[in-house]
Amino acid sequence: MSQAKQADQPQQAISRFPVPEIKDLPDDIRTAILAVQEKAGFVPNVFLTLAHRPAEFRAFFAYHDALMLKDTGSLTKADREMIVTATSAKNNCLYCVVAHGALLRIYSKQPLVADQVAVNHLKADITPRQKAMLDFAVKVCLDSQSVGDEDYALLRGHGFDDEDIWDITAITAFFGLSNRLANVIGMRPNEEFFLMGRVPRQ
Amino acid sequence: MSQAKQADQPQQAISRFPVPEIKDLPDDIRTAILAVQEKAGFVPNVFLTLAHRPAEFRAFFAYHDALMLKDTGSLTKADREMIVTATSAKNNCLYCVVAHGALLRIYSKQPLVADQVAVNHLKADITPRQKAMLDFAVKVCLDSQSVGDEDYALLRGHGFDDEDIWDITAITAFFGLSNRLANVIGMRPNEEFFLMGRVPRQ
Amino acid sequence: MSQAKQADQPQQAISRFPVPEIKDLPDDIRTAILAVQEKAGFVPNVFLTLAHRPAEFRAFFAYHDALMLKDTGSLTKADREMIVTATSAKNNCLYCVVAHGALLRIYSKQPLVADQVAVNHLKADITPRQKAMLDFAVKVCLDSQSVGDEDYALLRGHGFDDEDIWDITAITAFFGLSNRLANVIGMRPNEEFFLMGRVPRQ
Amino acid sequence: MSQAKQADQPQQAISRFPVPEIKDLPDDIRTAILAVQEKAGFVPNVFLTLAHRPAEFRAFFAYHDALMLKDTGSLTKADREMIVTATSAKNNCLYCVVAHGALLRIYSKQPLVADQVAVNHLKADITPRQKAMLDFAVKVCLDSQSVGDEDYALLRGHGFDDEDIWDITAITAFFGLSNRLANVIGMRPNEEFFLMGRVPRQ
Amino acid sequence: MSQAKQADQPQQAISRFPVPEIKDLPDDIRTAILAVQEKAGFVPNVFLTLAHRPAEFRAFFAYHDALMLKDTGSLTKADREMIVTATSAKNNCLYCVVAHGALLRIYSKQPLVADQVAVNHLKADITPRQKAMLDFAVKVCLDSQSVGDEDYALLRGHGFDDEDIWDITAITAFFGLSNRLANVIGMRPNEEFFLMGRVPRQ
Amino acid sequence: MSQAKQADQPQQAISRFPVPEIKDLPDDIRTAILAVQEKAGFVPNVFLTLAHRPAEFRAFFAYHDALMLKDTGSLTKADREMIVTATSAKNNCLYCVVAHGALLRIYSKQPLVADQVAVNHLKADITPRQKAMLDFAVKVCLDSQSVGDEDYALLRGHGFDDEDIWDITAITAFFGLSNRLANVIGMRPNEEFFLMGRVPRQ
Repeated sequence: MSQAKQADQPQQAISRFPVPEIKDLPDDIRTAILAVQEKAGFVPNVFLTLAHRPAEFRAFFAYHDALMLKDTGSLTKADREMIVTATSAKNNCLYCVVAHGALLRIYSKQPLVADQVAVNHLKADITPRQKAMLDFAVKVCLDSQSVGDEDYALLRGHGFDDEDIWDITAITAFFGLSNRLANVIGMRPNEEFFLMGRVPRQ
Repeated sequence: MSQAKQADQPQQAISRFPVPEIKDLPDDIRTAILAVQEKAGFVPNVFLTLAHRPAEFRAFFAYHDALMLKDTGSLTKADREMIVTATSAKNNCLYCVVAHGALLRIYSKQPLVADQVAVNHLKADITPRQKAMLDFAVKVCLDSQSVGDEDYALLRGHGFDDEDIWDITAITAFFGLSNRLANVIGMRPNEEFFLMGRVPRQ
Repeated sequence: MSQAKQADQPQQAISRFPVPEIKDLPDDIRTAILAVQEKAGFVPNVFLTLAHRPAEFRAFFAYHDALMLKDTGSLTKADREMIVTATSAKNNCLYCVVAHGALLRIYSKQPLVADQVAVNHLKADITPRQKAMLDFAVKVCLDSQSVGDEDYALLRGHGFDDEDIWDITAITAFFGLSNRLANVIGMRPNEEFFLMGRVPRQ
Repeated sequence: MSQAKQADQPQQAISRFPVPEIKDLPDDIRTAILAVQEKAGFVPNVFLTLAHRPAEFRAFFAYHDALMLKDTGSLTKADREMIVTATSAKNNCLYCVVAHGALLRIYSKQPLVADQVAVNHLKADITPRQKAMLDFAVKVCLDSQSVGDEDYALLRGHGFDDEDIWDITAITAFFGLSNRLANVIGMRPNEEFFLMGRVPRQ
Repeated sequence: MSQAKQADQPQQAISRFPVPEIKDLPDDIRTAILAVQEKAGFVPNVFLTLAHRPAEFRAFFAYHDALMLKDTGSLTKADREMIVTATSAKNNCLYCVVAHGALLRIYSKQPLVADQVAVNHLKADITPRQKAMLDFAVKVCLDSQSVGDEDYALLRGHGFDDEDIWDITAITAFFGLSNRLANVIGMRPNEEFFLMGRVPRQ
Repeated sequence: MSQAKQADQPQQAISRFPVPEIKDLPDDIRTAILAVQEKAGFVPNVFLTLAHRPAEFRAFFAYHDALMLKDTGSLTKADREMIVTATSAKNNCLYCVVAHGALLRIYSKQPLVADQVAVNHLKADITPRQKAMLDFAVKVCLDSQSVGDEDYALLRGHGFDDEDIWDITAITAFFGLSNRLANVIGMRPNEEFFLMGRVPRQ
């Protein structure tokens, strides 16, 4: 059985840096982490590994929440996670592709779309509007210096307004930060993410 | 429920080109396809889509089998599928990453390794020998013109002999062909592959 | 006289997005901006342009301060600004190269080093330790997926410890975010920055 | 005299791998090779070097013949060899550029076109239709992930039908395989190819 | 004081190669250099470092003068220096970005434009005509093989004639030569250039 | 017969720009061109096309001769032409690859080496010293910003002195200029070059 096989391996480190015990963390961070654990059933490693630096942890998640939990604009939660998955794949960030791919599956209720978007968004089962959104996000990710009027016009042609464009840009930029951090510290995705959203809940 | 949701969508084409009915295929191709169906429980779309060109179909699978089913050399079946998954990801080939990622999970009995290798093989739970193998395969995939003595030496340092090096090269080269064909004709992976090998069989 | 000439031109927008009046901002943001104005003699446009989104503004500057104002570790203020200048040049971010180049000149008391680092850090008047720091930062900026043990070892060989490596990484990653935002919203550097630190104060 | 000079050099290996004697080969392969020798006056090294692996040899040449010897579709023999020459140059494959450049000269009866296409097809004496064909082939060679509807439309605008598009794709993909194999095993072109088709036959 | 600080450092070499004394130079070269010194108030290091090779020096400056001092065509002196600054930045040539950026500031009487163009010409305070000119120059610099009819048409649409196009091309090409030489020999810009044109003359 | 076939085509322009009649040229240029014609038996198109701009023509050929006709240093004439051929191939310059490939064949008396070097110098029949020379030249051509001490050391390890390194650099840089000019003006190689040096003179 494959799980057993995996279990035979030595426990893999989730970061190149020290990972604090939850009980030793500052109150606000410990509380935030326990709330996530309560909701998700486990603590995503991004919380544990970034807790090594409390001040940066607080800023990171404040930024994250401002972008990913905001309730204005036309981007759905699935749209947001789709941007994260597609651009994190361009940055070859294992943690973000796996963790946000899981969230994308859950929010979109499309079990295949995360793998599609991670490999090649041009072949994914997405709408033309989502394709335009990802084309733009990939350009922000890989070649932001060249973004100009014509890119704004393309998005507006799909019904995005300027605030949406800021959202797409900021999400891409924020996860570009996250991707680089995760790549360098060797942030390891929790095993739970790999299967999440692939099979119907019972 | 997500499967239901997916089912609501119009049936997606599996190729930009005509896909023949199995019953209309030449005998040898029909027999080969039925044998695969018997074993796998479904017909992988690579068989159906390439059957549009019988002569090329025969050569393609003869080449495939010569490389992937050979029983000499030190590469395991998991090693072979790992090469395919890693290099197909570099070529952004949805079909091959999904289908051969499934085979990699099955042969390796490691449910996580395919996603790891597809995103970034440097972060995967693989042996140093496998890492050297993939470093070489990625170089063959992206920059074969620069392969030289020092690359051979690195592989030999991990116990690969020259026949193994040919195997790694030929598998990478063959799936580079497959990736380009699949990308251009829009070959769509069967839904069965996405989940295969992720959960223990009962 | 050149300043006059420049003044003849229509006032250039500092962002593609609305820029709030300072008086209309939330108290904490207004206070923060007025404090900067008090100290610098002007308000850097990054404050005005990002204030369009107060929640993101707060997270952005909390992150910024955690990385750039921290008083532990071996990176000097000049080292930090040098990282920002070099990597922002790779991302072709006009705002950050100009603004942080100014800060680099001031902290380093080297009026030439910002231009050197922005064009080609290999030709700059910096120490071998700084060169190694920038080599690493540029790799994090452009190819973070490939960072590995050997990169850590190179930095340790120059006396950086692991916390310094996190600092270099996080600064690079954070300004990669900033660069993408600035490039897309068209953040315009204040004219004051261009000359700052180039001539001795009287 | 230059030939003499060249002859003074030690005989160059035509592959990093063992090259079988023709007499030791399986009957079908030996027969095929002797037929080529009969027709061409020499044995192209691709036959000798790939004969090291008989099963792969058979599949390789079956695939080759299915693509290059087919008598349907609108691609001429010269068109096919032009695709091979142009894309092999992008992959820096010495064997294929030299050998297929020779065939291109012969089939096209244009002694200059192979060198033109190998260096820069935009400067070659080819028709607009051939230019569109090579533009597409180069995209399949270097960036197949991005091929989409607009590429199909461009080719149709030049009178290519979908079967022609498959042909261009498959030829490019197949020789991408060949290029990688040749680059890694160090396949050396026969000297005969270099001059072939450059001077009128007497 | 920063100048003092800089002065504490050991004198930096201006070339990896021997730099001749002005008095030891051939008459024509010495005369040319003294004339420049008379006019500029100092001898730009490009004169001193290239004087190591008198024959190449003469050809280099003859070419330079033919392109940069010609008084026909529609390119202004500022346009010419803008091309040099933008393309030298793409080639990461410290000497040329700094020295020609200074000339650009002087000729354009725009103290900010050189830094803008060096970082990202798409964000610079330039006319649409100048943007088209720099788009073309950057293409000649980085991808001259792809220049074709459509590029000529774009420039003509901005009022450039064919002789202007030759000028843009030749200036870009000539400074591409200069950039490579300067990068390899380690040509160091004179400190005078860094400040030149940034402040109004008194 | 292929020559006949070629002749059926309309005469191809050798430049996008006006090509002066030899009789209309300034005396010194006409004399220089007639001397070349006398020696070579034809006028290479680089002379005719660049004569459109006499001042630049004079500087171009003065530079060319200073680098290519100098009789000091350890580079042979074949070495020089080999550098031109290899780097012009990287710049996809049809004129220079064809014309200097011809000269390389003649000076080296190796009829195959120009095609080898143009496609992939790592597979060419050249000495380790020549391979190091071309590795360096290609780096100067494509990435001169990164050239540093270790590159100088590598060349010195093959017996090149610093003056040789300047020669390799300057030849590469000069032909980078030539490649860009030729690509943009559409300089067409004379047909004579294609066959030159391929067959023994009688």
